Amino acid sequence: MSISVTKRSTDYARWYTDVVQKAELADYGPVKGTMVIRPYGYALWENIQKAADQMFKETGHVNAYFPMFIPESYMRKESEHVAGFAPECAVVTHGGGRELEEPLYIRPTSETIIWSMYKKWIKSYRDLPILINQWANIVRWEMRTRLFLRTTEFLWQEGHTAHATAAEAEQEALKIVEIYRQLAEDYLAIPVLVGKKTDKEKFAGAVHTYTIEAMMGDKKALQSGTSHNLGQNFAKAFDVTFLSRENKLEYVYATSWGVSTRLVGGVVMAHGDDQGLILPPKIAPYQLVVIPIWKNANQKSRIVSLTSELVAQFNKAEIRYLVDDNEQTTVGWKFNQWEMKGVPLRLEIGPKDLEHGQAVLVRRDTAEKRSVALANLVRVVKETLDQIQGDLLRRALEFRENNTYEVENYDDFKKVIDSGGFVRAFWGGDGLMEEKIQQETKATIRCIPFEQNRKGTCFYTGKPAKTIVIFGKSY
Amino acid sequence: MSISVTKRSTDYARWYTDVVQKAELADYGPVKGTMVIRPYGYALWENIQKAADQMFKETGHVNAYFPMFIPESYMRKESEHVAGFAPECAVVTHGGGRELEEPLYIRPTSETIIWSMYKKWIKSYRDLPILINQWANIVRWEMRTRLFLRTTEFLWQEGHTAHATAAEAEQEALKIVEIYRQLAEDYLAIPVLVGKKTDKEKFAGAVHTYTIEAMMGDKKALQSGTSHNLGQNFAKAFDVTFLSRENKLEYVYATSWGVSTRLVGGVVMAHGDDQGLILPPKIAPYQLVVIPIWKNANQKSRIVSLTSELVAQFNKAEIRYLVDDNEQTTVGWKFNQWEMKGVPLRLEIGPKDLEHGQAVLVRRDTAEKRSVALANLVRVVKETLDQIQGDLLRRALEFRENNTYEVENYDDFKKVIDSGGFVRAFWGGDGLMEEKIQQETKATIRCIPFEQNRKGTCFYTGKPAKTIVIFGKSY
Repeated sequence: MSISVTKRSTDYARWYTDVVQKAELADYGPVKGTMVIRPYGYALWENIQKAADQMFKETGHVNAYFPMFIPESYMRKESEHVAGFAPECAVVTHGGGRELEEPLYIRPTSETIIWSMYKKWIKSYRDLPILINQWANIVRWEMRTRLFLRTTEFLWQEGHTAHATAAEAEQEALKIVEIYRQLAEDYLAIPVLVGKKTDKEKFAGAVHTYTIEAMMGDKKALQSGTSHNLGQNFAKAFDVTFLSRENKLEYVYATSWGVSTRLVGGVVMAHGDDQGLILPPKIAPYQLVVIPIWKNANQKSRIVSLTSELVAQFNKAEIRYLVDDNEQTTVGWKFNQWEMKGVPLRLEIGPKDLEHGQAVLVRRDTAEKRSVALANLVRVVKETLDQIQGDLLRRALEFRENNTYEVENYDDFKKVIDSGGFVRAFWGGDGLMEEKIQQETKATIRCIPFEQNRKGTCFYTGKPAKTIVIFGKSY
Repeated sequence: MSISVTKRSTDYARWYTDVVQKAELADYGPVKGTMVIRPYGYALWENIQKAADQMFKETGHVNAYFPMFIPESYMRKESEHVAGFAPECAVVTHGGGRELEEPLYIRPTSETIIWSMYKKWIKSYRDLPILINQWANIVRWEMRTRLFLRTTEFLWQEGHTAHATAAEAEQEALKIVEIYRQLAEDYLAIPVLVGKKTDKEKFAGAVHTYTIEAMMGDKKALQSGTSHNLGQNFAKAFDVTFLSRENKLEYVYATSWGVSTRLVGGVVMAHGDDQGLILPPKIAPYQLVVIPIWKNANQKSRIVSLTSELVAQFNKAEIRYLVDDNEQTTVGWKFNQWEMKGVPLRLEIGPKDLEHGQAVLVRRDTAEKRSVALANLVRVVKETLDQIQGDLLRRALEFRENNTYEVENYDDFKKVIDSGGFVRAFWGGDGLMEEKIQQETKATIRCIPFEQNRKGTCFYTGKPAKTIVIFGKSY
């Protein structure tokens, strides 16, 4: 059996699904729209989780867990929110063998249930801020499944914070989008544009939404994490007030923010190639696969003993490795399989290497092959892993820059969007115009980047504008 | 404001609920039967999770995630299983604004959904064993809520393994119940009886069930973890076969096993007292609370600077500490609060201590107070934490032994059960007799302990018997 996938250039969507399944990241569940995250995919998610969780905790956040059942009446308390989410909810109508008096929505996000609890917990400014995060499963009904990108149930983290002032809430929303940027760039090696959503694109119930947006291998955008300043909307909907330092009763200020298993899909699409996955070393379940090679019993015993010496060194150096000494598969099949699974480095140890006191190290991202003296092996492996981590980010950044175009009129805009890529352009239009452009081209404003330093002319209205925005088709 | 709870001896159930809420472990959710795990309770759960997850991984298990929606038809494939679980399920009938063609059950446990996937993944003996664990939320409809012990939604881990032989499955089920014993005794400081369930008490769909059973402070039993040998029941229900080494088509053998957030309730009930929680150091969110005490600005600056020196030492020694230097609460209130929250050790640093180069260390479990020279502080803290961990286990074991009685007839049995405690007795009865005893006394056979070394007379039938069992009332 050999493993291969549809070529990326032939059919990107098909390539993506092939890679996710053949690399054993995930599989379709039996209910339409659902996904099974397989052990290899889950290990990748655990590494992403660990990095994010640590950054949240270092900035004073704590984890908690809220029920997934939301009474229908709670969903209806914030009008924009219910309009945005109710149509895609799953609804429980029966429990314990009986029909329920009030239907229960399975959380599509937890603002409503959490703010109903904050009402109990918050009395005075002394109770603030509350900086809670939750790791949980979420349900948003989907008929068109795309593993990791669009499934009825997915895993995520959702932060829900409560503050005494508008300024603090704003600072928190910004702090989080910066953590998301670090997570994407420093761990996933995915460069992101950081900015604000337009009113049309913001979260249902938010004052405004910050976002990190990445370019995938097909030049489409992946919204990879969002951080919302909710103002006093949910506090008002759930009547959550506090006694301020000045002894006044005021509504609490809120933020919410999340990243999800969608990031795993982002890693596949940002880095993968026709041979399969390419994983950034910092989050790869295995950073190194060791493939011992022998032809007879004498060679075997020497190679096995060398391998176990090396393994002891990798353990000590905290390199995440796997030894594939399966005798039922060929060496060629092993190369194939671990390339498909995107392990950053492959180490081959054969009889000839043994004689020369060396081993062969192969990079997954560049296929570069080199012989390394055993005495230097751990050092070289560590250095090469760092190099790969950096190179993946640089390569993806270069790809994005090469596929981002500045345009001055709508005709040029349509050409870019049609052939693929981001448009970076001055914008002075309104929500109705955004809507019209989306209908005509499928492109949306992905974000208004934080970096804004020029003035110019809106490509759409032809009028002077001082805001640069990024347009693109998106997942 | 002072914090106090109902006395344990006055009303144990009320004491429990008071402690869980006042220590801010959990709160009631808005939907009847649901629970919110608050940050302090969740941190405790995270420490339990971390210990269990590491033991699972060290024994070759990997994590994955399966959908929580189970088609009604899947639930019905294993007859004992559906009879056991269907009546307590929550059912989704609407999704994405439409009525579903087939109702979806929210997992009460995941055997059915997982075995439907194993059917896709298992072809040959080369695909075995599969050693998958999942951390997930579970729904079993409950109207009588008891925080952590009995809630409609709870968190747990569920292992689901697949094996080529009956012997391997049996070995796995036994390996896991031993891991559960270690988790309970070495981390939670809760001594457990390890044994097998009777047919009446086993899991719906299992060949047999192993269990760890603990005695709580009210002398009732808490089933704290179960490991099931499922034989070929689920493989047959889902038609999961594999080609053996001998090239024969055979049904796969299975196990499943789980522990849940119920363990947090066990920690509360096994160790707590009238002042609140007492947490075992290994899983306590904070092992040490530091309370700096001063009366004027001059003292304050010296105490603050000493505290930060000590904190640097605690960091280095990986002691989980918290400094409570809140100036809006009194020292007495702080003592009270951190006792309620069960922090194992309290360190008081006041002006007099400073003069003498010492600090006062107070044990939560014994209230023992001693002055410790600052030069020895880290060493003494570490030693004392170890001591507390051991003492809690010993104290709980002694309590269980003191409240376990051997009986020779049903009258004595009823007296013990009535006044509280476990009965350890010879048993030669059958399932109908178990049922009758349960109706008359509310006591059930908690387990048939692994350690069996005598013969005697059944206390109920009066006939010779060679099996010792443990009876008790349970949660």
